[in-house]
This record gives sequence, structure tokens and C-alpha cells, in this order.
Amino acid sequence: MKIGFIGVGIMGAPMAGHLLAAGHELAIYGRSKRPVALGAATFCLNSREVTEKSDTIILMLPNTPDVETALFGADGVAEGLTPGKLVVDMSSISPVATKAFAAKLADLGCDFVDAPVSGGEVGAKQATLSIMAGGGAEAFARARPLFELMGKNITHVGDAGAGQVAKIANQMIVALNIGAVAEALVFASRAGADPAKVREALMGGFATSRVLEVHGERMIARTFDPGFRIELHQKDLNNALESARQMGLALPATATGQQLFSACVAQGGAGWDHSALVRAIEVMGAHEIT
Amino acid sequence: MKIGFIGVGIMGAPMAGHLLAAGHELAIYGRSKRPVALGAATFCLNSREVTEKSDTIILMLPNTPDVETALFGADGVAEGLTPGKLVVDMSSISPVATKAFAAKLADLGCDFVDAPVSGGEVGAKQATLSIMAGGGAEAFARARPLFELMGKNITHVGDAGAGQVAKIANQMIVALNIGAVAEALVFASRAGADPAKVREALMGGFATSRVLEVHGERMIARTFDPGFRIELHQKDLNNALESARQMGLALPATATGQQLFSACVAQGGAGWDHSALVRAIEVMGAHEIT
Repeated sequence: MKIGFIGVGIMGAPMAGHLLAAGHELAIYGRSKRPVALGAATFCLNSREVTEKSDTIILMLPNTPDVETALFGADGVAEGLTPGKLVVDMSSISPVATKAFAAKLADLGCDFVDAPVSGGEVGAKQATLSIMAGGGAEAFARARPLFELMGKNITHVGDAGAGQVAKIANQMIVALNIGAVAEALVFASRAGADPAKVREALMGGFATSRVLEVHGERMIARTFDPGFRIELHQKDLNNALESARQMGLALPATATGQQLFSACVAQGGAGWDHSALVRAIEVMGAHEIT
Repeated sequence: MKIGFIGVGIMGAPMAGHLLAAGHELAIYGRSKRPVALGAATFCLNSREVTEKSDTIILMLPNTPDVETALFGADGVAEGLTPGKLVVDMSSISPVATKAFAAKLADLGCDFVDAPVSGGEVGAKQATLSIMAGGGAEAFARARPLFELMGKNITHVGDAGAGQVAKIANQMIVALNIGAVAEALVFASRAGADPAKVREALMGGFATSRVLEVHGERMIARTFDPGFRIELHQKDLNNALESARQMGLALPATATGQQLFSACVAQGGAGWDHSALVRAIEVMGAHEIT
């Protein structure tokens, strides 16, 4: 199949590599240099050219404005589209904007699927990404064989935008679960208990979570190399809070979580692993987990 | 062994029943009527009399002031104690107060273990409670055989107060994980996605938690019969926030969680299951999960 791939960075390059390895004809475009591993792909001048050369166009870009520019800006995807082509946005962006993009692409006679992923760089390289997809049943069916080359846990959540909604819900829960474990372990440590023993006592009970398991351990061992960077998690929470504001929805816990990440950024922690949110609690309490 | 049991309510009565069934001689006291199932126990006039008749005295009371009164009030435990007796407080109360109680009992020549439980009424009846214990190694060793009659997952977390610290950490995480799932599912529903499908897409990934599994399902199925009542969870968070204030520790996420519970109480929800915290998010957003 003729596939276009726009955005070949840390995530996009290995994802596109899997499509190439499966024998697909690949046209790519990205602001970064042409990735060495994608030598067999055609490197295009812009998103329009990628689109002209392809039947399915995949985007993997940092945020909403990047996707909007790639789709509808000068020399963008829309200029190269002809009816019947399929656009798949695998970026993690605003679900509200995504619905608008899907509507505009439908007006051009094209199918659209939003399919953000979780699993990070490791998941992208190992083709084990979780993929949360939104879009019509036919569009999803067209995209699914490609998803299966890049990921494992593939869910069709609902109509256009539903993939982004699921991804944001995921990021909200992860951030707030990190906040929960952070406050609990700093509290325990400050009160004189051994945080490792407290974590152990809680595992298996009602407080059990993947975050308590993995990030709880990080907080105790003080290993804050990413992993998943705070600045990226802030982007996701910003999409949550901005979408919520547009819909007239209050998310007080998510808002607090975002502030705690900002307190880390104030300490120079934009590039820390998101488990380092614990440092925001520690600095406020003048107490580090010991 | 001669055991005293003070507080034979919903939790205490079945717990004391297991001790009785194991052949221990039991002296009990409580403000409620003598439980029928404890007919073979000696019902005493007050906590002093219970203590005089027993070598080990267990307390299972609602909150810090109740324990303080039972221990050190008129006709309380302290009046009946002689050196060498063991006091075990299985109530869920303040860890700061607990340390003070332990010190006063040590001055009287007595051992002390704080051993709050989780698992609720069902766990109490089935003797499957999780027990988080604080106290000296010898005191814990004395109490352990009794714990094994009442629970399954028994952890010696640390010195006196550490059991309460672990219990509070548990309750903080559970409350904040409920808040996380509540905001994520209301967001998803309001954005037009099917919350059941979103929950499904997230299970197994990094957002996985026992709360997403159990309470996420309750929020979608709208089954808010307790379970664990909001007013009880508020008591635990109050102990977290009050202890944190005494230690000079800020817990912004826990504070937000407590406010969300209060918003439920404002709607008449003190007796709802704690998963009904979702209603605080729903009422603010004028949107119920559908």
C-alpha cells in the first residue's frame, strides 16, 4: 500500500519503520533530518507532496497546532487530498479540534481516524503500542491492518475524536494516580514510617495501581530519568483542561495535578520523568522521601 | 488467652467473634447493645472493667476522640492496666495522637500496637482483613496470633503509629484514584465517548488500578450503595490533612479530594459509596455519565 507518514521523530520514525519493513511503499516528511532507518522511503518536500504520493496518510506530530498546520496549512495534506483517501492522526491532541478536522476532511470526501498511542518510545520501537482509535467503522477497518504493524492493544473506542478522548482520560488517570502515590508516600515518610514498607503493605489491596507499583518504586529509589517527561504530560493535561473548559466541565483534581507539574517545572524539572511530581510535594513540605 | 474487646459494632463484633470461636476468654464493652453472636463473652460495665479482666485489650472504635476517651477517660483502660498488659488499637485514627497514646501506655509499663484494618464489614466477617501494624517487634509478636484469627494480609510496617500512617496512605490513594477515574470518565462521557469503552481501552495499561476496575464499573453502572461510606472516607482524609498540618506538610491533591467528598455530602451523599464522588464532578459539569 502507498502510505504517507508525516512526523518522523522519536515516535514516528520507528512506527514508520515497521510499515516499511512490512513492505509498504512509504513517502515521509518531517522537520527533523531524514531518519537513517527510513532510507528506503521517499523523503518529500512537504505534507502536500506526501499526500499526493499516498492513499493513506498518517500523522505523528507533537500537538494540535502542528496537526492543524500539517493538515490545512500551506502545502498541507488538504491540498494533496483526493476523495477516498484515508487520513490517520496518531498524535495526542485536542479531541475538540480533532472533531473539527474530521468534519473538514469528510467535506473533502476523505475518511479520518484519530488513533493516539500509549507506550512511549519503547512501545514504538517494539511495535507494542496501545492504540485508541476514533472514527467510523469502515475507516477504522481500513486503518486496522496498519495499526497491527505498530501496536498490540488496539481499541476502537467510538466516533472521530473518541481516540483522543480515551488518550486524555488515560493521561488524566496516570497523572492523578502519580499525585496520589506522591502525597501518600511523602506523608508516610514525613510521619516517620518507611515508605517502602508502606508501599508493600498497600500493594494487592484497594490502593493497588500500576502507578503505585512502578512510579512508587521510582519515588522511593529516586530514579527520575525519563521515562515520560513532565513537559509532555503537561501538554496532555492542558488538552484535558482546555477541552473541558470548552465543554463547560470543571476538573478540579486534574487542575491541581497540572499545578503540581508546574511546580516541578519551576524547579527545572520539565525534562524529569513524570514520577518526579513527588518533588513538588516534597519541596512544599521541606521533606524528601527517605 | 484473656482478651478484652472495646467497641463491638459493625466491624468489632465479627472480629471479636473470631477470637471467641478460637477459644479465647472474652470480656467486651461497647455503647451499642450486646451483640447476639457474642453471647459467650462477658459484657462489662466500662473499659476499666474489660481491662481488669484481660491480658490483651483490643479497641475498635470510630475515631481519635473515642479511643482517647476509652484509654484515658473516666473508667477507662488506663485505670485497669497493670504492667505487662498489651493494648492493641485496631481503630483507624490519627497517627500523631497514636504516638502520644503509645508513649503514655509505655509509661504505665504496657505494650502497644496500632493495627488499623482495611477490607470493611465483609473482611471482618470472613476474617480476611488486611492489617497494618505499628509497634515494637515484641509487642507485634504478641499480637500477631490474634491478628491471624481476624485477617490475612498482616504487615508490620514500623514503630507505634506506623500502622495508622499506612492506613491513611491507603485511604489517600484510594480517594485520589477515585477522583482520577471520576474526572476521566465524566470527561469522556461529556466529550461524547462511551465511558465503558474508554475504561476498557485503559484497563491493562498504565492507568490500571483496582479503583478503575471496581469503582470505574460502579460509576458506569450507577450503583452507589455502600460499600464504603463517603462520611467514613472523609474521616480518614481528615486524619490525613490534620496530621499533615501538624507536621507542616501540604497535601493539595488530598485537600481537593476532601472537597469533592464534601460536595457529595452537600447533595445528601454522606451515606453513599465513596465511588459516588463522581457525582461531585457531574453536578459541577451539569453532565451525568451516560
